[in-house]
Amino acid sequence: MVLVAARNPLNIGAAARAMSNFGFHHLRVVNPYDAAFREARSAVGASELLTNAEEYKTVAEAVADCTVVVGTTAVRHRELQHPLRRLEYGARLIRKHLASSRVALLFGSEKFGLSNAALSHCHWLIRIPTCEENISMNLGQAVAICLYELVRDAKAVQTAEKVKSATAEELERITTTLLQAMRASGYLDRRPIADVEERMRRLVRRLNLPARDAVVWLGILRQILWKLRSGKIPKTEDPRSLRS
Amino acid sequence: MVLVAARNPLNIGAAARAMSNFGFHHLRVVNPYDAAFREARSAVGASELLTNAEEYKTVAEAVADCTVVVGTTAVRHRELQHPLRRLEYGARLIRKHLASSRVALLFGSEKFGLSNAALSHCHWLIRIPTCEENISMNLGQAVAICLYELVRDAKAVQTAEKVKSATAEELERITTTLLQAMRASGYLDRRPIADVEERMRRLVRRLNLPARDAVVWLGILRQILWKLRSGKIPKTEDPRSLRS
Repeated sequence: MVLVAARNPLNIGAAARAMSNFGFHHLRVVNPYDAAFREARSAVGASELLTNAEEYKTVAEAVADCTVVVGTTAVRHRELQHPLRRLEYGARLIRKHLASSRVALLFGSEKFGLSNAALSHCHWLIRIPTCEENISMNLGQAVAICLYELVRDAKAVQTAEKVKSATAEELERITTTLLQAMRASGYLDRRPIADVEERMRRLVRRLNLPARDAVVWLGILRQILWKLRSGKIPKTEDPRSLRS
Repeated sequence: MVLVAARNPLNIGAAARAMSNFGFHHLRVVNPYDAAFREARSAVGASELLTNAEEYKTVAEAVADCTVVVGTTAVRHRELQHPLRRLEYGARLIRKHLASSRVALLFGSEKFGLSNAALSHCHWLIRIPTCEENISMNLGQAVAICLYELVRDAKAVQTAEKVKSATAEELERITTTLLQAMRASGYLDRRPIADVEERMRRLVRRLNLPARDAVVWLGILRQILWKLRSGKIPKTEDPRSLRS
């Protein structure tokens, strides 16, 4: 990653932080505003990455050992001298190149972006698909988005920690206890339901209960049932006796 | 978008800027550090979005009218009470919900993330796929990446401004002029090449010249050819006479 003429130490620091978040290691800075770079580098907790950043006087030197040089721009409709690709597509191309060669990704200054001179070193450009109404992004955020797009996994589908669902046996036990509680509370006397067992069974299945929640619900229902019954027939039934 | 207990006015401002970049309009803040929020809101050039941000005392109030509440977290392996999805996949689900209902996306404070109390209002969580070594992201950058993922177009394929390639006729004219220049310079006398015409034709095709570059190259070659010839037979041939 190459930052050209960055002005703001916070942005240089933010760029370095995003690189570390997404596993990129080589930061080069071209002609940074001296004070900004010194400040960013000497900030408390400045990363190794920032301390090891290489400083260059010109873009040509900074990208000399790279096979592909990609610039970033917010501009969309200006007559550009370069092929301009949306990030989603450009990142795919960059990933391909990265497999076999070194790619430089250039970001310009906060205020003016990349100069025409800097752009002339680029093979092509990418743009982040921002709204017409506000195309100008914060430098640190733009860097973070580009790097994220480079590491994102289009096939990432499911949760890291998969939630274990309740078994049919647990759901059936909940259904039974729920029906007992409904009867004990007098609910079914006041509102008789046709095919009540089937309906409640389906109602419980629609909850899509995770295994660990099923245990909690069963405990709650049993306690309620115990209380309901003990109200009529005090203490003849202990909740523990309901445990199968 | 809901920011819970954000501390740093720069981050609140950065979150608002990313929202404006990607076309999101409703910012809600829960219990921000008062000074931070006032400072962000009154910053020079604070966006309308920030000025219109709604302030809430509790997460419950901030998400009351939303159908789906999604939290963000950096944590990966902790025993979470929620399904945890990678951003790539979670964003797809959010987009589906957004078609028919209101979704709240919650971000916690810079220092501690979302509290367990705030998390308990969430239906599920997303995490940005950062490296093991540094999972903690800057708040403004995390917001920007999440919003980018929500608007990114997986099918975005080609450049906005497609580069027009040179025609076969232009390439052939370049090949001819190049051959003439090679002969005139004596290159072919010193290094004879078998099948020189075919080889040069292929060499020129491999340049994949854009139409506008072909014109420039032809002009340069013609000028060189003119100079080469005028060296021997002064001024008998004018470069303009080479134009077909």
